[in-house]
Amino acid sequence: MRPSPTAEMHPQRWGDPAAATDLPESALGLVELAFGRQDRPATSGATPPASALPARLLEGLREIVGPEHVLVDDATRTLRTRGKSTPDLLRARAGDFTDAPDAVVRPDGHVEVADVLAWAHEHRVAVVPFGGGTCVTGGLAARRDGFAGLVSLDLVRMKRLLAVDEVSMTATLQPGLRGPEAEALLAAHGLTLGHYPQSYLHASIGGFAATRSSGQSSAGYGRFDAMVVGLTAATPTGSLDLGSSPANAAGPDLRQLLLGSEGAFGVITSVTVRVRRAPEVTTYEGWRWPSFDAGSDAMRTLAQAGLMPTVLRLSDESETAINLADPSSIGGADDPGCLMITGYEGTAEQVAVTRAAVSTVLEGLGGTGLGTEPGEKWSRGRFDAPYLRDALLDQGVLVETLETATFWSNRRRLHAEVREALQSSLGDGSLVLCHISHVYETGCSLYFTVAARQAEDPLAQWQAAKVAASDAMIAAGATITHHHAVGTDHKPWFAQEIGEVGVRMLRAVKAEVDPAGILNPGVLIP
Amino acid sequence: MRPSPTAEMHPQRWGDPAAATDLPESALGLVELAFGRQDRPATSGATPPASALPARLLEGLREIVGPEHVLVDDATRTLRTRGKSTPDLLRARAGDFTDAPDAVVRPDGHVEVADVLAWAHEHRVAVVPFGGGTCVTGGLAARRDGFAGLVSLDLVRMKRLLAVDEVSMTATLQPGLRGPEAEALLAAHGLTLGHYPQSYLHASIGGFAATRSSGQSSAGYGRFDAMVVGLTAATPTGSLDLGSSPANAAGPDLRQLLLGSEGAFGVITSVTVRVRRAPEVTTYEGWRWPSFDAGSDAMRTLAQAGLMPTVLRLSDESETAINLADPSSIGGADDPGCLMITGYEGTAEQVAVTRAAVSTVLEGLGGTGLGTEPGEKWSRGRFDAPYLRDALLDQGVLVETLETATFWSNRRRLHAEVREALQSSLGDGSLVLCHISHVYETGCSLYFTVAARQAEDPLAQWQAAKVAASDAMIAAGATITHHHAVGTDHKPWFAQEIGEVGVRMLRAVKAEVDPAGILNPGVLIP
Repeated sequence: MRPSPTAEMHPQRWGDPAAATDLPESALGLVELAFGRQDRPATSGATPPASALPARLLEGLREIVGPEHVLVDDATRTLRTRGKSTPDLLRARAGDFTDAPDAVVRPDGHVEVADVLAWAHEHRVAVVPFGGGTCVTGGLAARRDGFAGLVSLDLVRMKRLLAVDEVSMTATLQPGLRGPEAEALLAAHGLTLGHYPQSYLHASIGGFAATRSSGQSSAGYGRFDAMVVGLTAATPTGSLDLGSSPANAAGPDLRQLLLGSEGAFGVITSVTVRVRRAPEVTTYEGWRWPSFDAGSDAMRTLAQAGLMPTVLRLSDESETAINLADPSSIGGADDPGCLMITGYEGTAEQVAVTRAAVSTVLEGLGGTGLGTEPGEKWSRGRFDAPYLRDALLDQGVLVETLETATFWSNRRRLHAEVREALQSSLGDGSLVLCHISHVYETGCSLYFTVAARQAEDPLAQWQAAKVAASDAMIAAGATITHHHAVGTDHKPWFAQEIGEVGVRMLRAVKAEVDPAGILNPGVLIP
Repeated sequence: MRPSPTAEMHPQRWGDPAAATDLPESALGLVELAFGRQDRPATSGATPPASALPARLLEGLREIVGPEHVLVDDATRTLRTRGKSTPDLLRARAGDFTDAPDAVVRPDGHVEVADVLAWAHEHRVAVVPFGGGTCVTGGLAARRDGFAGLVSLDLVRMKRLLAVDEVSMTATLQPGLRGPEAEALLAAHGLTLGHYPQSYLHASIGGFAATRSSGQSSAGYGRFDAMVVGLTAATPTGSLDLGSSPANAAGPDLRQLLLGSEGAFGVITSVTVRVRRAPEVTTYEGWRWPSFDAGSDAMRTLAQAGLMPTVLRLSDESETAINLADPSSIGGADDPGCLMITGYEGTAEQVAVTRAAVSTVLEGLGGTGLGTEPGEKWSRGRFDAPYLRDALLDQGVLVETLETATFWSNRRRLHAEVREALQSSLGDGSLVLCHISHVYETGCSLYFTVAARQAEDPLAQWQAAKVAASDAMIAAGATITHHHAVGTDHKPWFAQEIGEVGVRMLRAVKAEVDPAGILNPGVLIP
């Protein structure tokens, strides 16, 4: 595991600049060969617009959280501007910080959060909850028109492990905990959450819940929303405390209405999650498949047999050949087939039993075991792709990802049509790579990475590709997002996905708990 | 498995009178010894009030579904009066059919359901969706005041298997299918749903979804709500079609807002469920535990190790001793301990592997294997308890059940306090039995059965006990219902469980999709 995250990410790049690595010379040459060379350095020294919040309003905030926790300096506001999608980075690199909040407020605890929301409701100030700032769907770019100002509600002070129940195997966590911080607190009890999305080093517990995150170990530990058994949330008009039991028949499951609500219904102030014993043994290995179809069918067989490794992922032919996560391998063998990674975590016995059973199935279906080396290599680089994106953006390469999910019988169509949409939009010389990294009995996710030579206006270039891909997803009956949430970017397709009555239901809940519409205005709700 | 269900249940009793068995003479003696003897035969010949729906309104319904599918005769309306809780039966046995609908309408398909709801919305007619009629929480006893009338929307004509996807392992079912009918259609494809609540022979697919049902094989197949990957529903103001993918991050999971909505938000017109291959092998066996605590801890160990049989249930000391499901065994050994039933379904290899692993764990924790006889006996009688209740009601014994769920660390307190509340309320000579029949990593259900000599007013007697038990559940932080839904009976405690903001959220959704409030008025929404 990497060193613990820095508290703040660079405003124009992913993560900790000290952890970033330049492209090696050999990779630079290949990138230049593939996409040409155009230096696109980031603009430096840009600042956000002056804070528009009147002093009398700031005073009210200071009374709630203490003056030292209401920040209006440019540097702090810059660091709370938008998230980390490629469009976000392109805007930041161009020096555009127009979406900066007017102030950053840092409440400590449920009561202070509730008080900030009541204050914002009274004064018609928009509030954007902020956890790790890793959003890639525009979920931090709330509308400010019609409001007296916009504040970033930073959960950075809410980093406690509130309770551990080792009989029920649950833990209650505050929302500001970053992934590694939560794991460190749990590790002191010999426990783990097992939630490792690519954003793990920076993303927060509250963000995992509010966006229905899914991690790289979802085959073994499940999605984050499946781990949540209880939560508390503050809304501008009252508080929620849900989770009387693991599951029940007491009406609709309101936890599932808060999970994925992206700060539009309330601010999640704690989550009670199912935890597991920290694994004694962790091992990752590679398998080669002759085709994406063959590997995908094998994943389906495992999922439907209830025989799941902890990590299960499969790259398509393009992604296997390119392996963007390690540019030094660009090129590769003539016919690398498709690379699958299987990972096992648990007691030595659990790992041995599951690994043997899975391996028997995979061998029987035509997979070729590659040993642990490809698995360990994947594991070492599992959180690094966003750094690589920065390096490629510097070189004038447009890099971005998008993802979806569908039922198994629709997987082949969805893969082909989204791929085709992206390729057509981005044109000759662009790369479209895909992997499956989350599987269910009835279906799977598809995660696409694209790389193309940046056009004059890379933002417009990407928007066109994104529209084409999103239209293809909805046309194929798939979801607009398996684990990146709706934000502002996905709203038009989200509305199609849930339909007019679904949209009206969400609007009704929003209007009830947030009648002034101050919570993340313009995010999620179509 | 028993013969297929009759289309209609007796209006004053459970199920098919032909399938009912009287208490054997030996049992009668013991029941008389325990509770005394008082014949309480049901009143015969009672009829419902005349239909209050004006002819001009009935004409509108007839235009939608055809005249032969609008029924107003007394016999049909009697059969759609309330559900099958003991209070429901006591009222029916006393000849009280005042809650009978004014008409029974039988639409065929989503469009006709939607048209009926639009008609009802326009004419302010209350609508009670009707599936199997097995509700035990007053969910069929809607309010009629303020409405032009009340119709029972009977889903009996919607019994099709609409689609099977053997790649994704999903099936799309219409809501009127009873449990055995759905299984028979799936069996033709070698598939099974694996959902066997005690009401299985009569309850419907739509009811399973609308009430978040959980079946006796939930350890292996999961709760019904966990099986649902998609659904369509008609509301008075539009239709819903949800389920783009097995799971996703596209906002709150609206499927989870319809599941458990008990007909208050809309009528579920189809569900797409995850299915499994029909098992090659099915075996049930018994285990003896020295105490409920020891057996319960063993269940927790299995659940937290991810090592689950298909069926896993445990009776407490009282239930083991009495074994109400088979009165001939009342008495039993001096110290029978606690009986656990484990069931295994799957391929021969799956059953052998899981059974061996589970047995090793159970033996290691102090369980004593009793072989298959107790398991097979349980399996034979698994749907029979409601018939026994009728026989006991005839003898003047009050019999009813209630259930809850909590986290493992709270299991002992909840068991003790609900038991104490029931015992105190029902007084000396009453029996309070309990079992765990649904387990999760983080907690379990508790299902109580009570028997007592009927007081002069058995309805008031039971209501007092129910209030005491429900208060105890909420005081212990548990749910008011693990798998019987809210109906009208649980509303006061449900409101406490989800809190004021939760109630407001549900009311807001209801007001949005059903502004005239015609859908199951008074049910679910506090």
